[in-house]
Amino acid sequence: MTLGQEFNAFARSIEDEIEALEAVESKRLHECNMGGTAIGTGLNAPAGYAEACASHLAAISGMPITSAPDLVEATQDTQAFVLYSSAMKSLAIKLSKICNDLRLLSSGPRAGFNEINLPAKQPGSSIMPGKVNPVIPEVMNQVCFRVIGNDVVVTMAAEAGQLQLNVMEPVIAHAILESQTMLGNASRTLEENCVVGITANEGVCREFVERSIGVVTALNPVLGYKKSTAIAAKALETGKGVVELVREEGLLSEEQIAEHLDPARMANLRTV
Amino acid sequence: MTLGQEFNAFARSIEDEIEALEAVESKRLHECNMGGTAIGTGLNAPAGYAEACASHLAAISGMPITSAPDLVEATQDTQAFVLYSSAMKSLAIKLSKICNDLRLLSSGPRAGFNEINLPAKQPGSSIMPGKVNPVIPEVMNQVCFRVIGNDVVVTMAAEAGQLQLNVMEPVIAHAILESQTMLGNASRTLEENCVVGITANEGVCREFVERSIGVVTALNPVLGYKKSTAIAAKALETGKGVVELVREEGLLSEEQIAEHLDPARMANLRTV
Amino acid sequence: MTLGQEFNAFARSIEDEIEALEAVESKRLHECNMGGTAIGTGLNAPAGYAEACASHLAAISGMPITSAPDLVEATQDTQAFVLYSSAMKSLAIKLSKICNDLRLLSSGPRAGFNEINLPAKQPGSSIMPGKVNPVIPEVMNQVCFRVIGNDVVVTMAAEAGQLQLNVMEPVIAHAILESQTMLGNASRTLEENCVVGITANEGVCREFVERSIGVVTALNPVLGYKKSTAIAAKALETGKGVVELVREEGLLSEEQIAEHLDPARMANLRTV
Amino acid sequence: MTLGQEFNAFARSIEDEIEALEAVESKRLHECNMGGTAIGTGLNAPAGYAEACASHLAAISGMPITSAPDLVEATQDTQAFVLYSSAMKSLAIKLSKICNDLRLLSSGPRAGFNEINLPAKQPGSSIMPGKVNPVIPEVMNQVCFRVIGNDVVVTMAAEAGQLQLNVMEPVIAHAILESQTMLGNASRTLEENCVVGITANEGVCREFVERSIGVVTALNPVLGYKKSTAIAAKALETGKGVVELVREEGLLSEEQIAEHLDPARMANLRTV
Repeated sequence: MTLGQEFNAFARSIEDEIEALEAVESKRLHECNMGGTAIGTGLNAPAGYAEACASHLAAISGMPITSAPDLVEATQDTQAFVLYSSAMKSLAIKLSKICNDLRLLSSGPRAGFNEINLPAKQPGSSIMPGKVNPVIPEVMNQVCFRVIGNDVVVTMAAEAGQLQLNVMEPVIAHAILESQTMLGNASRTLEENCVVGITANEGVCREFVERSIGVVTALNPVLGYKKSTAIAAKALETGKGVVELVREEGLLSEEQIAEHLDPARMANLRTV
Repeated sequence: MTLGQEFNAFARSIEDEIEALEAVESKRLHECNMGGTAIGTGLNAPAGYAEACASHLAAISGMPITSAPDLVEATQDTQAFVLYSSAMKSLAIKLSKICNDLRLLSSGPRAGFNEINLPAKQPGSSIMPGKVNPVIPEVMNQVCFRVIGNDVVVTMAAEAGQLQLNVMEPVIAHAILESQTMLGNASRTLEENCVVGITANEGVCREFVERSIGVVTALNPVLGYKKSTAIAAKALETGKGVVELVREEGLLSEEQIAEHLDPARMANLRTV
Repeated sequence: MTLGQEFNAFARSIEDEIEALEAVESKRLHECNMGGTAIGTGLNAPAGYAEACASHLAAISGMPITSAPDLVEATQDTQAFVLYSSAMKSLAIKLSKICNDLRLLSSGPRAGFNEINLPAKQPGSSIMPGKVNPVIPEVMNQVCFRVIGNDVVVTMAAEAGQLQLNVMEPVIAHAILESQTMLGNASRTLEENCVVGITANEGVCREFVERSIGVVTALNPVLGYKKSTAIAAKALETGKGVVELVREEGLLSEEQIAEHLDPARMANLRTV
Repeated sequence: MTLGQEFNAFARSIEDEIEALEAVESKRLHECNMGGTAIGTGLNAPAGYAEACASHLAAISGMPITSAPDLVEATQDTQAFVLYSSAMKSLAIKLSKICNDLRLLSSGPRAGFNEINLPAKQPGSSIMPGKVNPVIPEVMNQVCFRVIGNDVVVTMAAEAGQLQLNVMEPVIAHAILESQTMLGNASRTLEENCVVGITANEGVCREFVERSIGVVTALNPVLGYKKSTAIAAKALETGKGVVELVREEGLLSEEQIAEHLDPARMANLRTV
């Protein structure tokens, strides 16, 4: 596959996380229970107070705040916080996974994958001259672990609610606001100090494709699985490339090689 | 408030959880990546294969299965599992909280809240004659802890995906199917063996309302916060009831008492 | 049982947690890997450097710091942090459980357990005159949830180590130091602002013992399980006390009642 | 460093985990509360019953079971379970980390690290001829995630104890026994089906050392940090090896190269 496909999948999957976060926000975070007074029954609140609160909050915040349809239920229920924290956790899982990938793909230069270069941000070692570490993805990983830990805090606090109230809401708010702030800041840093400056090591990638034994997969339809397996085994044994062996053994013409082992075609089969 | 309001809020808040689960299911669990072959590029799969897979799966399952719009992204992404597990966790938090409430409200008979009775299911003690334990809610609590633990399993497994695949999917599937099965079974047991048989201890509830110092809240509008606080303090000190003290001190007429300290009115103020 | 026994068990079980924390600290937190240089092989460090580092750190910190026996292993291993965080989590579980108990035992005054009083720290409600909330235990609960969440952070960060290093150590240190600080501060607050000022509601406790149906348990040896069960059932049905019924039915002499239903004896049977 | 050092560190760090597990087991899992009857006060149990229980359990189990010094505390306290689960979690973190390392070190053959070979256990792909997956470490990773999830189950269940009992002990026992069984089985499989059959790719390792830019570190003491950095940069730019450049530029004699860039010496500096 191409690096373009790889990074496109990263982007698509982050878009899915943003969409999930926005769905929770728009569906569940705009209801408020003000006017329910102590436990949602509205004791001592004049008629219309709850609606007036919601309108005023909407006006000063610019957000579509509405009064919850059932104030008793709204006063004790923390589902909106649980689902919002879960959506942030889902984003954190995704970001941490992608940062692990960035670190793996940029490992090296000599004894790692070395397919891409992350922008160098600081000397990586006081003892190894020239060492560069993927510090920005490492920061993001650590932020993500904290967001995942915060989700456990929210879980325990939400479960600890009793009857008509949840007195643990302060720690829920603290955990959610911290996760929000940290994810926002770290995402900005990841974009500005890492993602926009990533470059491809074209030579390394090309060599991997040419030396790859996996490309033998594309020969299945023309040579059959059995013959293809034999070539794979021979490549592994001799250290030679698949194309090299196909040529040596005269299995395919140059036209066939160009057609079947064209990397672009292999990677884009569905869209050709 | 009334027990009806209390249990209505429980019901409403479970409905919200069901709705959230169904939203994840319908939005995210019906996409499949079959036909993407190894990493989503569709290498060696004939044109139309992915769509044919989806149609066939839809036909045999009766579910609206579709082919994912981006097979590369769909092959590596476990967001659907993460969000579905999170929604089950959210339901577990809610059910555990409600079961804690049921246990608290039924605690007693003599040294607890004793507002409601749960159906007796088994002798609660080999040493204490007549003891009954809330064993069905206790089972549900334990199931909920397991669902919450399973969500951590899903989190770690999803985060451990690398590049174009997530080889940890078996443990994700195991955790999700276990949570599904346990929540389903325990919910059925909770309904059949507990919820439908709950009865109210009317006498205890009425006595709590009559002896409650909290009802003084309803006097704020007529007597003012200061005088109300004085009555509350006197009630606590003397062990007398609020209504009793109001009568003793001639603060309100019987009509006013009937109007302001009517429990039904206090609980339903907004809808009167 | 007596409140003394109850609080003694709380104290004993906190002592066990302190002992576990100190065991981890003394056994695992005093080894250091300085002098291992990059990955523990000690490349470029002069002979004796590691030991000199340890001695110097011991001297300036006053703690028994030693050089780890295997610097390669010590450089990559985060077990000490994992176990220390786990021990703090164990303490948090215990403190949270005890604070739940304090809140339950002090619930009321009228519709709760009301066996003990926590010191009143702030007005509990702007709407209910005279309401007092157990705010100090509630703070401790929330701190404990955070410590438990931090343990998940440490878990994920420790698992994310690769080969000879763990680059996620900053977030491990952050989580551990935060847990340490919060547990220390909250424990001090719990002691000063709550535990030392707890008082017993003797009247309520005595009434619970006298009205308790559970005391029937002590009659098993003299009346047999069957007869005792009948008395328990009758007490529940009639609302009468067990002693009252025993007297009414002439089942035991006053001497026997004094002997078998003496609360102190029931609670201390083993030590009498 | 050598593979021997690397695997020796793995072994040492697993030994530390075993030692921690055994410490919890011997210190905390051999106390029992039998004879405390309902809440630890020993009501209705004859004198000596608790000690007799412990002796009998010790005799039939062959384990040094003793009666807990405070039965009230022992009846409500789940610390032993929490710490034992935490120690299993710590082992799981370590095993998962090492399995990640094994998968990374064996990645390839062509586009990965390829330093070691894991025994091939099953065809890795129906589409890629010759593909082999690290299935045994992958199984262990998934087992470890479950053990970590089980620790959260134990945490929540332990925190949910109330007053003199913890009615959530069944799910604690279930989680602990599952973790024990799974860790035992998976460890045996990891040893038999993976670790004992691991082989080194000597050629690849030697080439990595020779082509490594990191070896420049060993030149700091003879050439200084500045000159060493220049060589590192030139190696990266030209693709040449460090030794090659040192020879080209005549910076060191063959004797000096043999002395300072001898890989064995670099890896074992402290013990030479």
